Amino acid sequence: MNKLLTSKLRRFHSEVEKTLSIVIHSSPSLLDEQFHYALLNGGKRLRPIMTMLCCELSGGKYSSASFPAAAMEMLHTFTLIHDDIMDNSDTRRGFATIHKQWDVGTAILSGDEILSLAYRALLQSTTKNSLRIVETFTQAFYDVCEGQAYDKDFEIRNNVSTKEYFNMIELKTSALFSASAVLGGLAANVSERKLLALENFGKNIGIAFQIQDDYLDNFGNEKTFGKKIGGDIAEGKRTYFLVRALEQFPRDTLFKNVAQRKLPTRNIPIVIRRFEEIGLRNDAEKLVTEYTTKAITALNVFDNNVPKKLLIDFVLQLIGRKQ
Amino acid sequence: MNKLLTSKLRRFHSEVEKTLSIVIHSSPSLLDEQFHYALLNGGKRLRPIMTMLCCELSGGKYSSASFPAAAMEMLHTFTLIHDDIMDNSDTRRGFATIHKQWDVGTAILSGDEILSLAYRALLQSTTKNSLRIVETFTQAFYDVCEGQAYDKDFEIRNNVSTKEYFNMIELKTSALFSASAVLGGLAANVSERKLLALENFGKNIGIAFQIQDDYLDNFGNEKTFGKKIGGDIAEGKRTYFLVRALEQFPRDTLFKNVAQRKLPTRNIPIVIRRFEEIGLRNDAEKLVTEYTTKAITALNVFDNNVPKKLLIDFVLQLIGRKQ
Repeated sequence: MNKLLTSKLRRFHSEVEKTLSIVIHSSPSLLDEQFHYALLNGGKRLRPIMTMLCCELSGGKYSSASFPAAAMEMLHTFTLIHDDIMDNSDTRRGFATIHKQWDVGTAILSGDEILSLAYRALLQSTTKNSLRIVETFTQAFYDVCEGQAYDKDFEIRNNVSTKEYFNMIELKTSALFSASAVLGGLAANVSERKLLALENFGKNIGIAFQIQDDYLDNFGNEKTFGKKIGGDIAEGKRTYFLVRALEQFPRDTLFKNVAQRKLPTRNIPIVIRRFEEIGLRNDAEKLVTEYTTKAITALNVFDNNVPKKLLIDFVLQLIGRKQ
Repeated sequence: MNKLLTSKLRRFHSEVEKTLSIVIHSSPSLLDEQFHYALLNGGKRLRPIMTMLCCELSGGKYSSASFPAAAMEMLHTFTLIHDDIMDNSDTRRGFATIHKQWDVGTAILSGDEILSLAYRALLQSTTKNSLRIVETFTQAFYDVCEGQAYDKDFEIRNNVSTKEYFNMIELKTSALFSASAVLGGLAANVSERKLLALENFGKNIGIAFQIQDDYLDNFGNEKTFGKKIGGDIAEGKRTYFLVRALEQFPRDTLFKNVAQRKLPTRNIPIVIRRFEEIGLRNDAEKLVTEYTTKAITALNVFDNNVPKKLLIDFVLQLIGRKQ
């Protein structure tokens, strides 16, 4: 990876940690321990880093985007805490989830209060775009809830179409990336045309990111992926792969068993092989490239300068296409 | 009750229903059924009505406060949905709670998304105070979560002081009343001095309202109160009465049994009698009067006109001191 990006990411990462810490400590709370546990836990900070990179691309100073960036990380954390309750997940990034470490009530409440802190963080930003920053954030907040509602709904359905899958990930995953990019532009008071470009960029990179995430669950390297291979299959998750497989072979026993969580764990490799045999590995790779290209193309309205190169390097790294 | 207030309240009530309906239908959601169930359910709409009354008191047109008012009702509803999960409550206003009617995941998500709709509603208001409206709302959102955290914490403690109890209800109950009042003033672009008065008014009436609520649980009329007498005692809730009783008699078996949820239901009337014998009924009545008076006195900075009389009549009715 190039040196400039490495040092930039390190600086942005530490800026996110610092800002989150400031927001958490803006007033003493009975839930301080939970805030620390959930927020200062070694996350990758992809979304806030994207906000800062997009702020610099838009001609702003990254520090003017620190609070909106931190707010995006908090929105992301809020969704993880609440989703983990709904999915009954025991661990997150190798640690017990909040509702396992404490209890469901504490987890609901910690998520809620982190969201209120996110809005507090947003309101710290003092640009003439403050209201639009709140609006953009609120739309992402709404979308991510709606996406989670679809994801939950899919769990009990075997006839999810590829179109529905794309709609769901646009809401559940892309909305946050898109808002992260736009907030960077808003913090830098960039033009409407460029804001639209940032929105498209974020949306498309979000789709690429989610399909890549689904891909790595089947074909990734357990060490670099950080999660167990086949975890989505074990959970019967409606990934790009399962949705496409069921759409093509609605009566296939193997795929139906995955969907109904009836698959013996030992058969996970068989499913992965079938995904590849019916061409989905190849299709997914193409889609990731296609959406990444769309995202990068959206940036054409910006000059070709160092911040743009950094942002492109960052997203290529993000979707696993290392430089 | 006076006729003008009755007709005013009817108009405001229907304005709240209309505005909530507009917000819910601003985009189709997979959770539409839950939104209807939770939001359009015959609630009393005390907080949004207070917003509109305070807007008129501040010289504004009530309709300019419709969206902030609806947002306050949605914030209130969000807290009820999540609190009901935490308290494992089966019913609310005579209907199954959301997590009983559907499931915990659906309830968490419905609450979350209603909150995003609340912010969307806030952002509909187009005054120069829009950012302050969002700020005031966000502070109330934070406070109400923090209040709930204290309330949960109290459940496992027998040594809650009266001071801590007041701190908790200021956060959990007063914060919403106070913000409701201030939003009315902000919608009408009222002066800083009057905003401060509205804040004090709301805060004090919130305290009076909560103590009155605790009072009615012991000494109310089941029909007009709408809840079962002694419900708080059965649940071991840290009300004004139990907190004061335990503070005065920390070793009293009866009160300790209430706190530890070990009291046989048949003994609830004994507890209520003891509360009265140790002077708490009288103390609570005095406090309700005291805080109501403080609230009304805070309104001194406003002229004595019809909107002010209506607001005072409304709060007197609210805390059960009918005209």
